[in-house]
Amino acid sequence: MVLNHDTICAISTAPGKGAVSIIRISGNEAIKVSNQLFQAHNKKKLSLNNSNTVILGNIIENSMFVDEVLITIFKAPKSYTGEHVIEIACHGSTYIQGKIIQLLIKQGCRLAKKGEFTLRAFLNGKLDLSQAEGVAELIASENKQAHSLAMQQMRGGFSNEIQNLRNKFIKFASLIELELDFSQEDVEFVERKELLQLTNKIKRKTEHLLESFKLGNAIKNGIPISIVGQPNSGKSTLLNQILNEDRAIVSNIKGTTRDVIEERIIINGYEFRFIDTAGLRKTRNKIEKIGIQKTYEKINQSAFVLYLIDKEDFNIKKIENEIQEIQGQLNEIGSIIIIANKDDINQEKIIISNQNKYDILNISAKQGKGVDKILSSILEKIEDWKKLNNEIMIINQRHFESLINTLQSVKDVEKGISSNISGEFLSSDIKTALNYLGEITGEITNEHLLDSIFKDFCIGK
Amino acid sequence: MVLNHDTICAISTAPGKGAVSIIRISGNEAIKVSNQLFQAHNKKKLSLNNSNTVILGNIIENSMFVDEVLITIFKAPKSYTGEHVIEIACHGSTYIQGKIIQLLIKQGCRLAKKGEFTLRAFLNGKLDLSQAEGVAELIASENKQAHSLAMQQMRGGFSNEIQNLRNKFIKFASLIELELDFSQEDVEFVERKELLQLTNKIKRKTEHLLESFKLGNAIKNGIPISIVGQPNSGKSTLLNQILNEDRAIVSNIKGTTRDVIEERIIINGYEFRFIDTAGLRKTRNKIEKIGIQKTYEKINQSAFVLYLIDKEDFNIKKIENEIQEIQGQLNEIGSIIIIANKDDINQEKIIISNQNKYDILNISAKQGKGVDKILSSILEKIEDWKKLNNEIMIINQRHFESLINTLQSVKDVEKGISSNISGEFLSSDIKTALNYLGEITGEITNEHLLDSIFKDFCIGK
Repeated sequence: MVLNHDTICAISTAPGKGAVSIIRISGNEAIKVSNQLFQAHNKKKLSLNNSNTVILGNIIENSMFVDEVLITIFKAPKSYTGEHVIEIACHGSTYIQGKIIQLLIKQGCRLAKKGEFTLRAFLNGKLDLSQAEGVAELIASENKQAHSLAMQQMRGGFSNEIQNLRNKFIKFASLIELELDFSQEDVEFVERKELLQLTNKIKRKTEHLLESFKLGNAIKNGIPISIVGQPNSGKSTLLNQILNEDRAIVSNIKGTTRDVIEERIIINGYEFRFIDTAGLRKTRNKIEKIGIQKTYEKINQSAFVLYLIDKEDFNIKKIENEIQEIQGQLNEIGSIIIIANKDDINQEKIIISNQNKYDILNISAKQGKGVDKILSSILEKIEDWKKLNNEIMIINQRHFESLINTLQSVKDVEKGISSNISGEFLSSDIKTALNYLGEITGEITNEHLLDSIFKDFCIGK
Repeated sequence: MVLNHDTICAISTAPGKGAVSIIRISGNEAIKVSNQLFQAHNKKKLSLNNSNTVILGNIIENSMFVDEVLITIFKAPKSYTGEHVIEIACHGSTYIQGKIIQLLIKQGCRLAKKGEFTLRAFLNGKLDLSQAEGVAELIASENKQAHSLAMQQMRGGFSNEIQNLRNKFIKFASLIELELDFSQEDVEFVERKELLQLTNKIKRKTEHLLESFKLGNAIKNGIPISIVGQPNSGKSTLLNQILNEDRAIVSNIKGTTRDVIEERIIINGYEFRFIDTAGLRKTRNKIEKIGIQKTYEKINQSAFVLYLIDKEDFNIKKIENEIQEIQGQLNEIGSIIIIANKDDINQEKIIISNQNKYDILNISAKQGKGVDKILSSILEKIEDWKKLNNEIMIINQRHFESLINTLQSVKDVEKGISSNISGEFLSSDIKTALNYLGEITGEITNEHLLDSIFKDFCIGK
């Protein structure tokens, strides 16, 4: 992609009225164009100021005052985009913001497209593509854990991981190339067994990263937790205890919670989406059947399923059937947490799992007893997952897709080695994988790909 | 009011997510506190940087990265507030904004109250009170003309006007004082006639400023224009022509526009509020009666009333009655513009006002003919008003009230002179007037007054 050298401008602060707004300008003419509108109180031309300094003055239109502003000057290449950058801090009225943008456009600036400042930073080598995407993730992140994943991506943690993977591929490719160079001599320089081991290592690493997406994506968008159980087992009461407020309908009539209720809550910096479901009991009622169908869907989308048993009224056989049913619906990272409720009214009947087949938590949703055990069990599991992933997780659909393609190429290589295909073919498969990985960090790219990435950015970034 | 010297912080950009957000910190400890959270890439302590420079680095919490930010440093007294000021430009996620504010508060900062930065600027003598209020007006202004009035106020144009008025009072007071000094000698140093002339001049000037409020306030909040006329005279068609789109209901059944419709539109930088009314015809229908009552109220609140006559179907007597009715409802700055509509279907019947008593504009609302004449007639009138007011207008209710009180004191002085009261009493009345004027610019102030002014500011300004 060819870098445009025209000068772009945009409002970089949140839309609407505020005390202050920032208008950002980048390009060869950024300083010159700004100087046309600006009269510094010290009378100095903008270009005569040092980089990284702030100058007070007025924005003028036909000798009329538009605003008193602060202008910050960043000279190329020491700027976000790598080009000359000017930032105008003006009073945050919508009129002034619009007016200054209008004046800049009259002077020949172009309104920046979404993410165009960051695109230029990428094209000028200030950051790689996955770091650029990290910037967008960072701005979108609304809780501590999503923020920390995005921050890691922006700071290049994920890029390093991809680079490590690429290096393994390159080692593989160089071994193959070595063999090809001496192909006349019909000598196998590289043991096929060794190659197979290396391929296997790469495959495991790729799979590992792919697995991290489920959790990474859940952390980014809210970790889904379904509350499932027999009617009247106290699902809504438990949800309310967790939320500490009275939102879901709680009553003693069986099956009152027909609609799926979703509540978002932040615990230890993680955002959780608690989903109260219709339960699982067999029914002939059409509406309830739909509710149960929904419950299955929710279980499949969940990272955790809290399965509630009513200690007052339970049947080991039925419960074991339901647990198996739930486990059948779980996705790869889904876990079930089995909870025996109503500890308050039934203290003596402590449920012990059948031959220790399951861990069961005893709680009283009504009294809030044991609710903390549920939460710490969830948090423990998440921390375990994070450690498994070396704290590095994929949070981006595009990266996930590139890694899926990478994995396919690695499997092709593996198959190739097993069926003894020639070095040329192996080398070609490995290059395909290198291409897919290069897409993630932007070594391999094209205009269409960049367009589709940066269209999700906000204006002004 | 005693100036607090504690260090305050707030988000200064518009609320919500953006590419960039600004967090502002002001107070003795601003630099020290910021330095606690910040690691500059150049490793230098913040305080070692020059004023008006920008430093790139990281915000850190317990050795965890919160964000990469740009910090601008303004050292006292060369800052907006007159104190040390730090501005942190961070990535605009709501999480990061909240996190940095939280960290600052942990370091001992206090969350700034609305307008507290500007309050400090006022208390540190950076601007007077009416200029400070101009800052809030500026941020709130959404069109060119409201912006230019606010800008003038912020830049001190209105303060100068008040200062001129005050100077006249001071001249008056000094003449009286001179006389009091020589009161033993029972000589009247100042001719009572001369005093009366000066008082009159002050009175006229005060009245003049007071009059400007109606228009100033209208320009600030949108200039109200009612469209009034007989049913089916084409009011909605005219409104649509002005708006250039089809919003109001237009039909041929009499009395279809029962509800008051208000449309905002910007013409030549002025915001107008066009109000389509129910008309004025006599009726026994209850709902229509309410509509007509509303029409009267709207006329009273309007700067302009467009009175539409249907050329097809008119009655000079009835029209003259209605014009008189409207004129009876007009406020002090209200004007009526009489319009004869349906030029298209009734070309030959050109309405000429009865003995030139009224100016009448002939138009065709349907064809859009003559609509520009209406608009230019409105704009002309506004420009005349502005010239009358020397382009300086009151836009603030508080200033208006202070001037009302000032006027009362001046009238007391006038009465005093006429009834020959002693110099001491005249001097006391004039001091009261000086106090009221001093309230506007903030020479005279108190905590309660300041609280009530700054509570309307936005956070972070």
